[in-house]
Amino acid sequence: MAGSTRERILQTCLALFNAHGLPAVSTHKIAAELGMSPGNLHYHFKTKEQIVTWLFRRFEQKLEALNSSTAGIAAVDDLWLALHLRFEVIGEYRFVYRDMAFLSSEYPALGQRAQALTALELVAAQSLFEGLAAAGVVQASAEQARILALQMVFTTTCWLSFERLIPGRDGRDTDPGLAAFYALTLISPYVSSESRAYLDYLKSKYLG
Amino acid sequence: MAGSTRERILQTCLALFNAHGLPAVSTHKIAAELGMSPGNLHYHFKTKEQIVTWLFRRFEQKLEALNSSTAGIAAVDDLWLALHLRFEVIGEYRFVYRDMAFLSSEYPALGQRAQALTALELVAAQSLFEGLAAAGVVQASAEQARILALQMVFTTTCWLSFERLIPGRDGRDTDPGLAAFYALTLISPYVSSESRAYLDYLKSKYLG
Repeated sequence: MAGSTRERILQTCLALFNAHGLPAVSTHKIAAELGMSPGNLHYHFKTKEQIVTWLFRRFEQKLEALNSSTAGIAAVDDLWLALHLRFEVIGEYRFVYRDMAFLSSEYPALGQRAQALTALELVAAQSLFEGLAAAGVVQASAEQARILALQMVFTTTCWLSFERLIPGRDGRDTDPGLAAFYALTLISPYVSSESRAYLDYLKSKYLG
Repeated sequence: MAGSTRERILQTCLALFNAHGLPAVSTHKIAAELGMSPGNLHYHFKTKEQIVTWLFRRFEQKLEALNSSTAGIAAVDDLWLALHLRFEVIGEYRFVYRDMAFLSSEYPALGQRAQALTALELVAAQSLFEGLAAAGVVQASAEQARILALQMVFTTTCWLSFERLIPGRDGRDTDPGLAAFYALTLISPYVSSESRAYLDYLKSKYLG
């Protein structure tokens, strides 16, 4: 079935891009990994750009699904779960943000879509923090909500790239829980006293 | 003079790596840009890795010089200047952090040095915030100083990569002032009331 071959190609490419980086994976390497002739690979996807575009679209869709569910976040533990899920998606497609400089220079159309995605992320994060402020979970002015949104999107976008540079984490898998904890430290100064207990619980779990 | 040819090669490579990305610049491209035969380039530097290693060492040295001067930082405006200078160095060698995934996978020895550099950055940032807390500029516990240090190093390392994704900044040069301002928003919740005036001045300058 052609559908399942396409799916196998996409899954293999995702694993290769994540493991070796987008610049290092040629269509020849992809075909070899699949035990497939380059001609057969070409029958399914004409170019590497087509494959990257398919994977990028799935990444977009997963993040957009998470954005559309932020309206229900009204407590610190909801936010923790939402951040956790977000870092899982970003980790699953980790080549996208990690190799963004190469991706946007090789495939300018995808670079523009990454900017558009970032714009959506910023809007969603800002409305999230305005909602949390309205619910009394955080105490933040509109300007502070804007700053928090920028800090949060910066963190979700770049944390997994930075994590690899932290000494002592070599070779270990990314940890969505640690990433989400770090993101919560950004809102920590703004959290109202009623919501601090859950933050303290997370601190004891991750900094213990 | 051989010295000045080496210098011209290094400066040209720095410009090429910054403009086109480390993966996209081959030694053939470097030689062509210099109007030099590949053999002549090879006489000066045997491999691309050698060139990258030289540039990386200069980057390390510049950051270490900035780290060694953090002891004198005792006010928000000192911190502002220090961050500004740091973002200028990181911008001058912007390929290093932007293309880190490729750099550390192609040249594992440099990847390890980047980790060691990050470790030094974290130590310097933590002692910086402990000093600012001791001077009464910020109010932060030892744990908060550690979190602030992590946030600050994450920001200096990754901000310029993220900035390219922010809508409306396409094609414009990186802005060390904006980057430094963003970094200061992280310490904003911890700043004591006496030091807030300068932060408010910066806010009015950058957020209009």
